[in-house]
Amino acid sequence: MFESTYREVFPFWDEISDEDKNYICGNSSSVLFKAGTNIHDSSSCSGVIYIRTGSLRVYIMSDDGKDITLYRLHRGDMCMLSASCVLKTITFDVFVDAEEDSECFVISGPAFADVSEKYSSIKIFALETAVSRFSDVMWVMEQIHFMSMDKRLAIFLYEEITRIDTDIVRLTHALIAKYMGSAREVVTRMLKYFANEGIVELSRKGVKILDKEKLKELAFQ
Amino acid sequence: MFESTYREVFPFWDEISDEDKNYICGNSSSVLFKAGTNIHDSSSCSGVIYIRTGSLRVYIMSDDGKDITLYRLHRGDMCMLSASCVLKTITFDVFVDAEEDSECFVISGPAFADVSEKYSSIKIFALETAVSRFSDVMWVMEQIHFMSMDKRLAIFLYEEITRIDTDIVRLTHALIAKYMGSAREVVTRMLKYFANEGIVELSRKGVKILDKEKLKELAFQ
Repeated sequence: MFESTYREVFPFWDEISDEDKNYICGNSSSVLFKAGTNIHDSSSCSGVIYIRTGSLRVYIMSDDGKDITLYRLHRGDMCMLSASCVLKTITFDVFVDAEEDSECFVISGPAFADVSEKYSSIKIFALETAVSRFSDVMWVMEQIHFMSMDKRLAIFLYEEITRIDTDIVRLTHALIAKYMGSAREVVTRMLKYFANEGIVELSRKGVKILDKEKLKELAFQ
Repeated sequence: MFESTYREVFPFWDEISDEDKNYICGNSSSVLFKAGTNIHDSSSCSGVIYIRTGSLRVYIMSDDGKDITLYRLHRGDMCMLSASCVLKTITFDVFVDAEEDSECFVISGPAFADVSEKYSSIKIFALETAVSRFSDVMWVMEQIHFMSMDKRLAIFLYEEITRIDTDIVRLTHALIAKYMGSAREVVTRMLKYFANEGIVELSRKGVKILDKEKLKELAFQ
């Protein structure tokens, strides 16, 4: 059951021996993570996670529980930072939560590390995956520091409705603030401003987008 | 003149052919960057920079000129983000300035990229160097967001005097603020607090550390 997926997602699959293919498959498990559960924290090497359905949130957290979302992973993505034992140059800790019910394939970190020692193509794959996340994180950093709040919120809402193909964002203000690395009060204030401008409508169900064009303009101009 | 240095700093040097060694050396130049000059911006692939003396500051900058220091590089360090053409998965732009007069060896980006296509060990070296900077950047992000200002300033001052082996930090408040990704007013206020506590003495020459133990305690406890 693992092999057909791995053949598709791992560029190195055809280069490794049958024995190593079996070793990776034998150290894989299919797991359903329930929405809201923590999948990985800083204390462990949880493994390489391939997302078949659902979505995961990768974040850092302070001692007093404040967190910043680094990026989210969706169907077809690979989580490599949850396998810190594979990448020795990664010296920081991230947390990973399931945002929705998520079916994943998890390859044991130590097993993946074993095999990556044998093939430079596996090591390059792991490093390139990590480096491309580096780019995501820099984007978050620029957003947090350089962009005005209205633009950031507009981008968030626009990407959310585009991704799910809907016109309503069913998230609480607190959750939006969390995803954006901001405070709930700030998000609420800005959403009220958007509502006054006729861009959104606020209700208990969430944030309904009334004027998608105006939102887009605000986000990307 | 390049070869003896490269043999020491590149773990892959013994694995590559004499022809490729000559190609790398032939595409190297020895450059003295004057303090304060910009070495690299987002528009180019300046190359792989090895720092022989001095120090470089790597930062990101917004359209309106606000910047955040990601990390600083010192003697013996290698700057890989200035060679974005080598690492295709890096999609963000950084700026690099010389902080002091800095003697560097610069290897042309396209030439380094050429050779790295031939040897996976070179590719792994480039990626690992980039990933270890990823860890530095995450540390900055945690500092900016999670740490209180007094602790951050204490760490900055302590590292500065330890690095230069002096008891006076000859930087303006504005420059300290810039390096810390903070505002000058915030730094000035906090320095005055430190002065009141007898930790530092402020003068036109800079910030003199009076109580190194107390500073250390503040920084690392």
